[in-house]
Amino acid sequence: MKVLIVEDEPVSRKKLEHFLVRWGYEVVTARNGREALRLFQKEPVPIVITDWVMPEMDGLELVNAIRQLDLPEYVYIIMLTAKSDQKDLITGLEVGADEFVSKPFNQEELRARLNSGERILKLEKSLARNNAELKAANEQLQAANRQMKLDLEAAARIQASILPAEAPDIKGVRFSWQFRPCDELAGDIFNVFKLDEKQIGIYVLDVSGHGVPAALLAFSLSQMLSPILDQASILKKYANSPPGYRISPPQEVLIHLNNRFQIDTENGQFFTLLYGIFNTETRIFRFASAGHPGMILLPFEDSARLVQIPSLPIGFLENNQYEEHTLQLSPGDRLYLYSDGISEAENSERELFGVQKMMKILENARNAPLENSLTSLFDAVEDWANSKSLKDDATLLAIEITPS
Amino acid sequence: MKVLIVEDEPVSRKKLEHFLVRWGYEVVTARNGREALRLFQKEPVPIVITDWVMPEMDGLELVNAIRQLDLPEYVYIIMLTAKSDQKDLITGLEVGADEFVSKPFNQEELRARLNSGERILKLEKSLARNNAELKAANEQLQAANRQMKLDLEAAARIQASILPAEAPDIKGVRFSWQFRPCDELAGDIFNVFKLDEKQIGIYVLDVSGHGVPAALLAFSLSQMLSPILDQASILKKYANSPPGYRISPPQEVLIHLNNRFQIDTENGQFFTLLYGIFNTETRIFRFASAGHPGMILLPFEDSARLVQIPSLPIGFLENNQYEEHTLQLSPGDRLYLYSDGISEAENSERELFGVQKMMKILENARNAPLENSLTSLFDAVEDWANSKSLKDDATLLAIEITPS
Repeated sequence: MKVLIVEDEPVSRKKLEHFLVRWGYEVVTARNGREALRLFQKEPVPIVITDWVMPEMDGLELVNAIRQLDLPEYVYIIMLTAKSDQKDLITGLEVGADEFVSKPFNQEELRARLNSGERILKLEKSLARNNAELKAANEQLQAANRQMKLDLEAAARIQASILPAEAPDIKGVRFSWQFRPCDELAGDIFNVFKLDEKQIGIYVLDVSGHGVPAALLAFSLSQMLSPILDQASILKKYANSPPGYRISPPQEVLIHLNNRFQIDTENGQFFTLLYGIFNTETRIFRFASAGHPGMILLPFEDSARLVQIPSLPIGFLENNQYEEHTLQLSPGDRLYLYSDGISEAENSERELFGVQKMMKILENARNAPLENSLTSLFDAVEDWANSKSLKDDATLLAIEITPS
Repeated sequence: MKVLIVEDEPVSRKKLEHFLVRWGYEVVTARNGREALRLFQKEPVPIVITDWVMPEMDGLELVNAIRQLDLPEYVYIIMLTAKSDQKDLITGLEVGADEFVSKPFNQEELRARLNSGERILKLEKSLARNNAELKAANEQLQAANRQMKLDLEAAARIQASILPAEAPDIKGVRFSWQFRPCDELAGDIFNVFKLDEKQIGIYVLDVSGHGVPAALLAFSLSQMLSPILDQASILKKYANSPPGYRISPPQEVLIHLNNRFQIDTENGQFFTLLYGIFNTETRIFRFASAGHPGMILLPFEDSARLVQIPSLPIGFLENNQYEEHTLQLSPGDRLYLYSDGISEAENSERELFGVQKMMKILENARNAPLENSLTSLFDAVEDWANSKSLKDDATLLAIEITPS
């Protein structure tokens, strides 16, 4: 280990050098503080032994100057001093000396101090190395994390771009929704769109699981459930007779998807879906459900009721039949579709939120604007889960027939 | 700060306690090493001042015992000693004492040593705290990372499940491929499948970008380009006349997709696609390309040539027309489809690998089995990029007409 000896008195300097070299240290010497500091700035040395009283720059000034430098490693400083006044020692400690050895020095004492300093430096060094390694690992992890997050966020923007930007503007009916993926990417997906001038397509879909695996399938399904009329459209097909297309009945859409997506035994993915078509003239809502949680119907002047259709999720059973159901809606009625991220949100006792509470909240909010009723429900669910971030994707979609 | 004083001699012990309390230390005392160790094991103390010669357990044994303990923080140990023999001091240092103060002690000296010890302990402590914080941050990051990675790996398995497990077994023609996503999820995708008893559908598709955003679209497209005959199938459609279906010509598939996927100005996603139909009877390969890199045709006894169709990627231009092209293949011919992850792999000078090199390598491998020619090409590309992990997804798909 390298030691810098700073001593103006030549005999004492030589003597120090002699012993230190004999004890196996590599030695550099300086005749005063200024010279020492110059040497030190060129190349820091782990241990410094410095005299106190010297010309040009004394020991105290040197210690102070070294402690001001921004050094990568700790420097252990021993001051040689004839001073034994406690006040002096305190001053020395205050500027940053580690140890004092009385002058003229005692060999054993000096050697013991040096050994002690070395041990401390080694300890410091190992901690500092540890620190540096951890920091580097940290930065790598953070970079990897950031990269993955950016990637997922970019994907989330793509996913968001297929959600409806705003509700179709249709006289006599209003739509409102809230959609909260629990990860960057969602396994829930929904849409509201015009199928033609009188018919509105509406669906809420929930792929099992969440995160990227669920999102892959959800995104594919949302592409397939596009209302764009082309030769591959599921919702709307070309027809020879006017109006030149035929809107697929809800159960036909479900049967089609069930034929196409049988559960993959390897990854076990399946999905629930509620698809309906609302006729703005007749106010009839035709729908079919594939294992999806029931809708909540809140009639204008009646209590809420659950419209639950027992059925299997898509992918559970080959050739399963799905049925069409209808609801006659009236002015002032509200109809709520949702995913189980809401009804099955758990509290700390793992109790489910449940539809009873949902109905109660929606009833209480019946005089509030449609949007507010959704917010009230979400607030209550978050209170229940005691968290702003639910454990599953949550979708809530509401239809209101404008009160006459 | 707490100091443990270990001294068998009552007067000396009292005196030490007196000064330390006056200097502001909290003091515990013990009469010998054994008592001290018991106290210490109950509650570690940051600084220990111990006499050397004591009954029951002496100072050296105590220091040694403390250093054997697995302590969360460093303990600074000062030995009081009348011994001034260098050998003794060295022994003390060896078992782990930090400092020696001669006995009877000098107030100033002791106080200076204590101050010095305190400073070192503080430094250690701040480094150790830093260390602990970094470690905790590290663990959190690692957990988050692991979670994201697991999620992506699960998604990658879903994506992999839609790739062909094995080539269709058809007399007279062989297929081989290599597929290397650069991230967990790929924006490249390909497939080889029977459209009917005589016709094989083949495509290679490359969504711009890579990672999860590209994978979302690639996965959706692979679902749409499924050879399953249903009412939404793009590749194969129900027909009234026998055989009850009609296989869509390649350009029709591209036009369909181009109508459906116009480039989204927000995320700028588009894709290139080469789709072809190989007739196993006539050995004619009908294909259409949407901005996809050219195929390499390696005739049985002729040099390789590039079959490049200038065309626009899907999504670039609304109502763009795509054309059908044909290649008459003969026994012994090989045809290679690929994505630009191969042809545009860069070396350290950012030069592209290029089709010239590809053709050369495939020519050189013409007598090797089809699989080996793919491996040779991939090896060369990895050498070029000087990396096993390329910067873009890379797909390589080969068809060989069995030599007669």
